[in-house]
Amino acid sequence: MNIIKIYQYICNELELDYFITVIPKMVVMETMYETLLKMPLFQGLGEDEITKIVGKVKLHFQKYKAGSVILRSGDPCNELTFLLKGEIMLESTDKDNNFVLKEFQSAPDLVGFYSLFGIKTCYFSTYTAETDVDIVSIDKSFILTELDKHDIFRLNFRNILSNRVQQYHDRLWQFTYPCLETKIVDFLLARCEKPYGKKQLKIKMEDFAAIIGETRLSVSKCLNQLEKDGLVILRRTEVEIPDLNLLKLWKEKFLMTFSHNKEIVNE
Amino acid sequence: MNIIKIYQYICNELELDYFITVIPKMVVMETMYETLLKMPLFQGLGEDEITKIVGKVKLHFQKYKAGSVILRSGDPCNELTFLLKGEIMLESTDKDNNFVLKEFQSAPDLVGFYSLFGIKTCYFSTYTAETDVDIVSIDKSFILTELDKHDIFRLNFRNILSNRVQQYHDRLWQFTYPCLETKIVDFLLARCEKPYGKKQLKIKMEDFAAIIGETRLSVSKCLNQLEKDGLVILRRTEVEIPDLNLLKLWKEKFLMTFSHNKEIVNE
Repeated sequence: MNIIKIYQYICNELELDYFITVIPKMVVMETMYETLLKMPLFQGLGEDEITKIVGKVKLHFQKYKAGSVILRSGDPCNELTFLLKGEIMLESTDKDNNFVLKEFQSAPDLVGFYSLFGIKTCYFSTYTAETDVDIVSIDKSFILTELDKHDIFRLNFRNILSNRVQQYHDRLWQFTYPCLETKIVDFLLARCEKPYGKKQLKIKMEDFAAIIGETRLSVSKCLNQLEKDGLVILRRTEVEIPDLNLLKLWKEKFLMTFSHNKEIVNE
Repeated sequence: MNIIKIYQYICNELELDYFITVIPKMVVMETMYETLLKMPLFQGLGEDEITKIVGKVKLHFQKYKAGSVILRSGDPCNELTFLLKGEIMLESTDKDNNFVLKEFQSAPDLVGFYSLFGIKTCYFSTYTAETDVDIVSIDKSFILTELDKHDIFRLNFRNILSNRVQQYHDRLWQFTYPCLETKIVDFLLARCEKPYGKKQLKIKMEDFAAIIGETRLSVSKCLNQLEKDGLVILRRTEVEIPDLNLLKLWKEKFLMTFSHNKEIVNE
């Protein structure tokens, strides 16, 4: 707020042209620092350190209009990319091209982070601007030469990667396939970047049925019931999940009733 | 070899007692350096750098007799642990205590590496010496203060974590549940640290059937067929898999025949 007041004051007093170009940049930088400091990758760093980092690395600012592609699946990941403002869509396809999974990601967040290192350094998903978005990226080489100089950065980086390993490990260990209902939910939970938020699955009903080893009719029946419960919205060759977390909670409740009923049957 | 020759030579020429204690230590150190340099975490580092690292950090050497517990599930992971010699067994249990999965790991390898950072910094598995083993560990704090000074080490560390994320991501995306046979194999592939080597699954047939949503009879039939094919060995409440990779290859072949047969039926 302060910087905007000063800006208005100076604009009134002095030559306008100069301040119209220089001061907005300062405002943008201040907002960017604040946004970056909110991210887990920079958490714990002081403003001084962020200023030092930003002074040494080359930042690429980019604005994308809604609908334009930001990063494409299969392209090499050579940059540490931050989503500063807006919402993006991630589009991922299975290797047999049986289905397309769409997820939605809001700022602030990292984009394509898990493709920076390791054997697979190409993006798995295609990232498209869902609204107008602001992106800033840093060349990968600066990670080793500049960012790594800061203990907190190195620790954060390792914690983010380790958390991901642990989350995926949990997901893999949680897999069971007791019935059709859980298989539908698990199919999504296995593949989504984040186990919450809106998702869209583009798939033919017969392909979905084949993948989860059920008949087309029973999958269709189950999805219709989930639609009645307000957990999914069915369209032609598309299942929309308004919030995957609700579906996850539903599954947990369902499993409890399911195993309870089984016990009664077995008694 | 050279150092042993020098050792023998000096022992012949000089006071024996001194060399019996000092030189064997040097031989052990040389072997340890060689073993450490073979590991992905130190790959690319020169012997000079390893010597520098070893000079600055405190190494804990430990020998374990076959059968003794090295690290226990649930204990905090405060050390970077290397298996230098021998074979260990990893024992992991699901949260409902329905089954125990045993895996076997040979030297040289990292032990409990993915519990060092992130939110879950306690060991997931219990590690027991399967043969007599040599272990060396480094306090976690030295990672940030000493090991991280080496670019190659930081890069290796990040590559190992990123590889793991990518491997798990692949596993999660590969999940399909078209039929009983694949569910049995996928159940194991999801949970094993390494997708190859000997595994032992301690589970009651009725629990296995419930987890994968099939009848006890059909699971039992399928496992008996796999035993005839030499892919599993059945014991009371235990399924041994001599090599998970063979079972994985079998599954891939099975899926090809399965989808081919389905196409014929659909035509």
